[in-house]
Amino acid sequence: MLGKDYERQDCSLARALEVIGERWTLLIVRDAFYGVRRFNDFHAHLDLPKAVLSARLSGLVENGILARKPDPEHRGRHLYELTSAGRDLWPAVRALLAWGDQHRYPNSRVFKHVSCGTELTADGRCPRCGETPPVGDILTEPRRGRARLRDDSVAIALRKPHRLLEPIEAH
Amino acid sequence: MLGKDYERQDCSLARALEVIGERWTLLIVRDAFYGVRRFNDFHAHLDLPKAVLSARLSGLVENGILARKPDPEHRGRHLYELTSAGRDLWPAVRALLAWGDQHRYPNSRVFKHVSCGTELTADGRCPRCGETPPVGDILTEPRRGRARLRDDSVAIALRKPHRLLEPIEAH
Repeated sequence: MLGKDYERQDCSLARALEVIGERWTLLIVRDAFYGVRRFNDFHAHLDLPKAVLSARLSGLVENGILARKPDPEHRGRHLYELTSAGRDLWPAVRALLAWGDQHRYPNSRVFKHVSCGTELTADGRCPRCGETPPVGDILTEPRRGRARLRDDSVAIALRKPHRLLEPIEAH
Repeated sequence: MLGKDYERQDCSLARALEVIGERWTLLIVRDAFYGVRRFNDFHAHLDLPKAVLSARLSGLVENGILARKPDPEHRGRHLYELTSAGRDLWPAVRALLAWGDQHRYPNSRVFKHVSCGTELTADGRCPRCGETPPVGDILTEPRRGRARLRDDSVAIALRKPHRLLEPIEAH
């Protein structure tokens, strides 16, 4: 009836929503940008049933957003890492973060340019250097004075400044 | 169970997804950027049941993304227009369009800077002027050589170059 595929919408936005429009999917992608790679860590930091997380991770792998590979530290388990196409979602994630920050509730985290430590503007630029740093050159840290709502292992690991895409060792 | 609200996610991305993460919602917002304002035109251009469209439009009004006002040309009907907060969604919509264009299927439309006619880059900049034009200074037109998949009234109106946010008179 409703159609998952927006098939008759000849528009690249519709194509993008086919991939990342599913509930929770974009929060999983956000966590992947934060460096989360293990099922148990995604599960600790997101509040969704394991079956749903599992389905979403598989969908992201099928759609080429995440790559799944064996976890060298845990036999039989996997690591999920953003592919190049997945990393290209950063401008969209950043824009939605900025919108939520401006119109809903100040973001709990700030984003800074690694090389100069300057906080990025809402459109992702470094006001000091004038450039828009690639996602791997962005540092995220908790916004000062913000109450800590979560104390799962990922939330604790993210209390320190953390470079995006750098693996979190939360387990 | 799944929770619509991502309540325990202290993150402005989660807050943004509460508003625009519902299926079809972002395609309705896209059409509003194209200048669609009337229920019948949204319905002609999107392929979703009227009840769903009605619910999504009401949700967007409640969430302050669209403003509903009486349609001066049709007694008892309404016009839906993007609010200032709604227009601020453009960078996110643009980024998702660009991602779909790059990784799924070339967008059926191109976006140009009104003042110089130059096609914008994937990150929304005008390569000629170096600036990132605000949404009202962007012209959209069909990509050349692209087959016409739809012939609803909105699709026909959008076959001509059209400035974003400028009302479409499709009815």
